[in-house]
Amino acid sequence: MKNLIILLFIPFLFSCNRKQDVFDSETAEIINNFYGDALEYKESYNLLRSLSKDVGQRLSGSEGAKKAVVWSVQTMESLAFDTVYIQEVMVPHWERGEEESCFFYAGNEKINLRVLGAGGTVSTPPGGVTAEVVEVFSLDEVDELGEEKIKGKIVFYNKGFNPRYINQGSSYGQTGFQRRSGAVKAAEYGAVASVFRSLSSIEDDVPHTGGMSYKRGLDSIPHGALGVVSAIKLSEALKRNPQTKLSLTLSGKWYPDALSHNVVGEIRGVKNPEKIITVGGHLDSWDVGEGAHDDGAGCVHSIGALRLFQKQNIKPNNTLRAVMFMNEENGLRGGGKYADIALEEKEEHIAAIESDASGYVPRGFGFSGSDEQHQKIQEWLKYFDKNTISYFSKGGGGADIGPLHRKTGTPMFGLSIDGQKYFEMHHTEKDVFELVNARELELGTASMASLVYLIDKYGL
Amino acid sequence: MKNLIILLFIPFLFSCNRKQDVFDSETAEIINNFYGDALEYKESYNLLRSLSKDVGQRLSGSEGAKKAVVWSVQTMESLAFDTVYIQEVMVPHWERGEEESCFFYAGNEKINLRVLGAGGTVSTPPGGVTAEVVEVFSLDEVDELGEEKIKGKIVFYNKGFNPRYINQGSSYGQTGFQRRSGAVKAAEYGAVASVFRSLSSIEDDVPHTGGMSYKRGLDSIPHGALGVVSAIKLSEALKRNPQTKLSLTLSGKWYPDALSHNVVGEIRGVKNPEKIITVGGHLDSWDVGEGAHDDGAGCVHSIGALRLFQKQNIKPNNTLRAVMFMNEENGLRGGGKYADIALEEKEEHIAAIESDASGYVPRGFGFSGSDEQHQKIQEWLKYFDKNTISYFSKGGGGADIGPLHRKTGTPMFGLSIDGQKYFEMHHTEKDVFELVNARELELGTASMASLVYLIDKYGL
Repeated sequence: MKNLIILLFIPFLFSCNRKQDVFDSETAEIINNFYGDALEYKESYNLLRSLSKDVGQRLSGSEGAKKAVVWSVQTMESLAFDTVYIQEVMVPHWERGEEESCFFYAGNEKINLRVLGAGGTVSTPPGGVTAEVVEVFSLDEVDELGEEKIKGKIVFYNKGFNPRYINQGSSYGQTGFQRRSGAVKAAEYGAVASVFRSLSSIEDDVPHTGGMSYKRGLDSIPHGALGVVSAIKLSEALKRNPQTKLSLTLSGKWYPDALSHNVVGEIRGVKNPEKIITVGGHLDSWDVGEGAHDDGAGCVHSIGALRLFQKQNIKPNNTLRAVMFMNEENGLRGGGKYADIALEEKEEHIAAIESDASGYVPRGFGFSGSDEQHQKIQEWLKYFDKNTISYFSKGGGGADIGPLHRKTGTPMFGLSIDGQKYFEMHHTEKDVFELVNARELELGTASMASLVYLIDKYGL
Repeated sequence: MKNLIILLFIPFLFSCNRKQDVFDSETAEIINNFYGDALEYKESYNLLRSLSKDVGQRLSGSEGAKKAVVWSVQTMESLAFDTVYIQEVMVPHWERGEEESCFFYAGNEKINLRVLGAGGTVSTPPGGVTAEVVEVFSLDEVDELGEEKIKGKIVFYNKGFNPRYINQGSSYGQTGFQRRSGAVKAAEYGAVASVFRSLSSIEDDVPHTGGMSYKRGLDSIPHGALGVVSAIKLSEALKRNPQTKLSLTLSGKWYPDALSHNVVGEIRGVKNPEKIITVGGHLDSWDVGEGAHDDGAGCVHSIGALRLFQKQNIKPNNTLRAVMFMNEENGLRGGGKYADIALEEKEEHIAAIESDASGYVPRGFGFSGSDEQHQKIQEWLKYFDKNTISYFSKGGGGADIGPLHRKTGTPMFGLSIDGQKYFEMHHTEKDVFELVNARELELGTASMASLVYLIDKYGL
């Protein structure tokens, strides 16, 4: 009976004991040094300065993107990674033209609005378009209004962020249709153009660009982002005079797909060189600002993470890859290509980690994998200072590693960053190096390195 | 035997079940609304604009401090708190004079350094002091050098922050002796003045002031903060020429203690009006910048927390007090007075919460109370979004509520804020309203309100 009692106890002891798992002091010291080295040497921050200032904007297919590929190869070669190579990928190639303007008249007064074409917009005809405006807040509304009310007009999507949300990503999710699908929906009913309130968390007048789509077999109409203050001005003008005519000039041109590249840098694993842990960010950016937060930060987080292994002379068991993905912003071709090659080459991927949530201060990791894995990684939180990584939440990863995750089942992580200020500057001219704080950025780098180390050492 | 087995199981079941405590959906909804209302209406942010711009600097004993007391009374009265009153307290009164300068000659070239007197420094004699410089990195070094090497010289403390620490508060702790005790130690051996490297986390040239002390029976010598870049320049000059003479002018004057006030606003408890939960920040600031982060943020976090109860028309069980403490920066007289009155009046305090770690984004709460209480409050983490409050750590509270905690045993909490940028602007001219992000500040307010609500509802 005594034995029975003891046996009966065992599962309880186990389930209660999970929290008291072994604390590996070597791991703790190495992770502590990742943070110390990152904060002291600030190598990621210095790399980001170079990527932002020496390369700058780097939209897929542009000269900037070509420079960014060369920069990535040279940077990782200069750091003496074991291998640095490129993966060819054909990417969409769109370029913004010079003319962009938007105005209306209130009586005799000309009111200029701040406008920025969505990424991929076609040009307005010479001289621009001038037409009456239909203000809407959803795609359904356009359907309801139909051809009678829409034809020949400019559709104006004016749904703002919901300030009540703690996580602004939810607002972005709820307003993103305006930019992504607004032109297609407006064109269905014969609109001559469409404009939308910038996907922004603050009331300033800096317009936000970003990806949009057209639909085969439907007119492609010009589609532009208004600054939030401009959108409010237009909305108020329409209340006073519903016949207000808006004049819009946008310019953008599509070229044939261009040859571009993902850039991969590796530190070869000493025990299982064929097994791979990927850390990555996307190398392309929008054609305004410097792409410092989006996603220069993710690029230097990734290169920097491997660099931190070098600093402590840690030889990983598995092969670590820093991947600069091309074309996240308007095509995801780089991420797709990376997954295709992994499949073709029958590569063995242990995990993939993406940083594409800015260079602000890290807070946790999102994780997409099995429940058992999710439970296991909770144990690792004890190695993180509570002011760096405080959770592994369910779900999340990254757009570029998504195809690898879906096609090969590779578990994926996404670095979660404090996002309160993100949508103040996302896809705007304000996304420049000066907006990045060195210490905050470096905490991200060290967090990435620490997670890579834990996966490499303990598996998933 | 069966019963025995069951009995033996009970403690295990209990200890395992702690995590599955009841989830109170009413609590969850109210807390969610605290965050939503804070982020939508931004009342704390608007109050902070007023405190920063309409009142501005408010060092104890100054005209600014008087205005801040009036502002606090009027603000809380205008919000229709149940009671608003003041507590008289005598505070130190020191004022900075107009002349501050520091320079040396490198050959014929005059090198100007940026200097700011420590808060409380005496003036240099007319025309300033000019003397050779002894560079040191600790108080012990001054003892070792002794009178022979120190007498007639200017002691230059040049210990910098350790960039490797994740938590910059540790660096502040390790370098603070320079500002606080540097003048006393230098005076012990006959130094004519002392200067110190600003307690700063970045390499710019904006000097940081802050509290210092003199010792009765010992000469009070002038004591000034150098900008970090200036400190580096001076250190390099001393390496090239150890006989470099530094010329220093500082001015500051002590006046008799002044009458000032804590300001208290209450929402009366409906069930136990005699039991009190305090939320507070300190109303005084240094005499540079606007004291926006330090500690205007804590003041509006506290007023704002009570305001969020009003917004949802929540009648608390216990009395809630927002307390604007006077004189945290150079005397702590307000905090002492608050505790003394609590003792005299035999007030019953349930808990006290202080916000004095800036208006950046919140991360958790520190807690000083019993282990049982600490265990209990862990259960409350489930009500917080993981990107707001992710921990209740052991230790912490606040300087102003410390006396209450020590004298009456009242458990205390301190709001933990992401501190990566704090020591870039702490006690400098850069601590202005423009450096505060509305959403980050409001998350702090809602976090305070949520904790107050949890304590009020569930007890400690």
